[in-house]
Amino acid sequence: MRRLFLIGAGLMGSSFALAARRAGAFDRVIGYDVDSGTVVRARANGALDDGAPDIASGVHGCAAVAVAVPPQAIAASVVAALRALGSAAVPVFDLGSVKAPAIVSVARALGAMPAHFVPCHPLAGRELRGADAADAGLFVGRRVFVTPVAETSPTALAQVTQWWRACGADVHVVDAAEHDAAVAATSHLPHLLASTYVATLARRADALKRFTGPGFKDFTRIAAADPDLWRQILIENRANVSADLSALIEALVRVRDGLEAGDDARLRETLSLGRDAKERFRDGGG
Amino acid sequence: MRRLFLIGAGLMGSSFALAARRAGAFDRVIGYDVDSGTVVRARANGALDDGAPDIASGVHGCAAVAVAVPPQAIAASVVAALRALGSAAVPVFDLGSVKAPAIVSVARALGAMPAHFVPCHPLAGRELRGADAADAGLFVGRRVFVTPVAETSPTALAQVTQWWRACGADVHVVDAAEHDAAVAATSHLPHLLASTYVATLARRADALKRFTGPGFKDFTRIAAADPDLWRQILIENRANVSADLSALIEALVRVRDGLEAGDDARLRETLSLGRDAKERFRDGGG
Repeated sequence: MRRLFLIGAGLMGSSFALAARRAGAFDRVIGYDVDSGTVVRARANGALDDGAPDIASGVHGCAAVAVAVPPQAIAASVVAALRALGSAAVPVFDLGSVKAPAIVSVARALGAMPAHFVPCHPLAGRELRGADAADAGLFVGRRVFVTPVAETSPTALAQVTQWWRACGADVHVVDAAEHDAAVAATSHLPHLLASTYVATLARRADALKRFTGPGFKDFTRIAAADPDLWRQILIENRANVSADLSALIEALVRVRDGLEAGDDARLRETLSLGRDAKERFRDGGG
Repeated sequence: MRRLFLIGAGLMGSSFALAARRAGAFDRVIGYDVDSGTVVRARANGALDDGAPDIASGVHGCAAVAVAVPPQAIAASVVAALRALGSAAVPVFDLGSVKAPAIVSVARALGAMPAHFVPCHPLAGRELRGADAADAGLFVGRRVFVTPVAETSPTALAQVTQWWRACGADVHVVDAAEHDAAVAATSHLPHLLASTYVATLARRADALKRFTGPGFKDFTRIAAADPDLWRQILIENRANVSADLSALIEALVRVRDGLEAGDDARLRETLSLGRDAKERFRDGGG
């Protein structure tokens, strides 16, 4: 019996449980969630076989621990799992969008970087939330970034990588700091931008809504994601996001000044670079 | 024989010709385009029956003139058509994204606001361009804004409205200044935002492309539109766009400052307003 212990049984965690079970990576899944209703729903949809009353009892005898909790709760859950596991060589991996701060917090709490913690970030999601929306195919063809450090056990890294591949994912092993800087630019900044843009128009919604088209709908769809999750992601990655946002604000000021001056050349350059981005970034995402 | 004279036979113009012909609004379409290759393609796809050597000869005997040229060429084409038509009561309508500046330019060039000019803006488009991409169904279910002024002939307005409805469009008669302010906020600003955002990342494309996800692709798709068309739209509507952009820059500065200060409350408010926008703006677009 290869047993997975899942901490956090929402969309991401339950989807991993369903996918890994379908792939034969585990034949039993026990779960813990701070919300007991989530455990009920995850059992109902087949993601969990059973719930555990707490992390310490859940890790007992398991072959792996998946931590799929909100960003600001990751480090504490990883630390609790590793402490409960003691010297057992069981891989513990998370699914958070920001890697370096969690790694630093875990190492600080434990007094040293643990060998069996394997930080992960699957670039996957759905507009729906919760265990009810779990999907065994969520990771098929999607990228999963794995960000080990020097102390990470090669065996633990290989096992976690293999589980993700069994779920259909395209695994990339990258440096945590490089990862966090990159996703700040490609994911966290555009989300904040879309949210801020639609938030500034909220008061004018009644007057504006009949003038909206497909582009506007893309912005509202991006901004529709869970505000509490995104608040935590942005706070965790705030050094990178605020640096990128500052650079963007400067660029917007130049565009605004150019527009007011009727400076066609500057506008043309920005719009041409923008037009080319689709090609320049081609073959990027999963 | 009800003949339409089309000035500008690209995507929008050829699509209108195909749609209006299919609906039986016109049984012959003559076209003029500064690019003779466009006329050849529009004849090949059935949008045009024949080309005209210039505007003056094309308007002869027609029942309507549709002006589907780039924004900065609209006023001159409308003026040329109205001058060639003389006292004939033939509706001349355009398909531009910005209304008030074209209206002012036409009135100034003619010394008075002409009764038979009916400014229009169909909120429709495709990622593809040119006569080859023309689609008789392009306007089905899409909004078309019509922005008459006090001097506009009620008969001309009724005829143009009827043609758009025959093409399947949902016609809204609105004030030109209100229209321009609204589309600055809902369409022109987000386009400029997406373009500027992806333009600032152009230099980092090789390092970032494997970190891009679905949200990023929305931005590159929006920014992929014709830069020369958008430059003209933004310049035409620059007073509205720069005012909205200034307000957005101020909002982004507040968000950035809040993020740097770790101010959860401010971030939470922006993200919650952003999340609610999809609902708040529901039933908006065509």
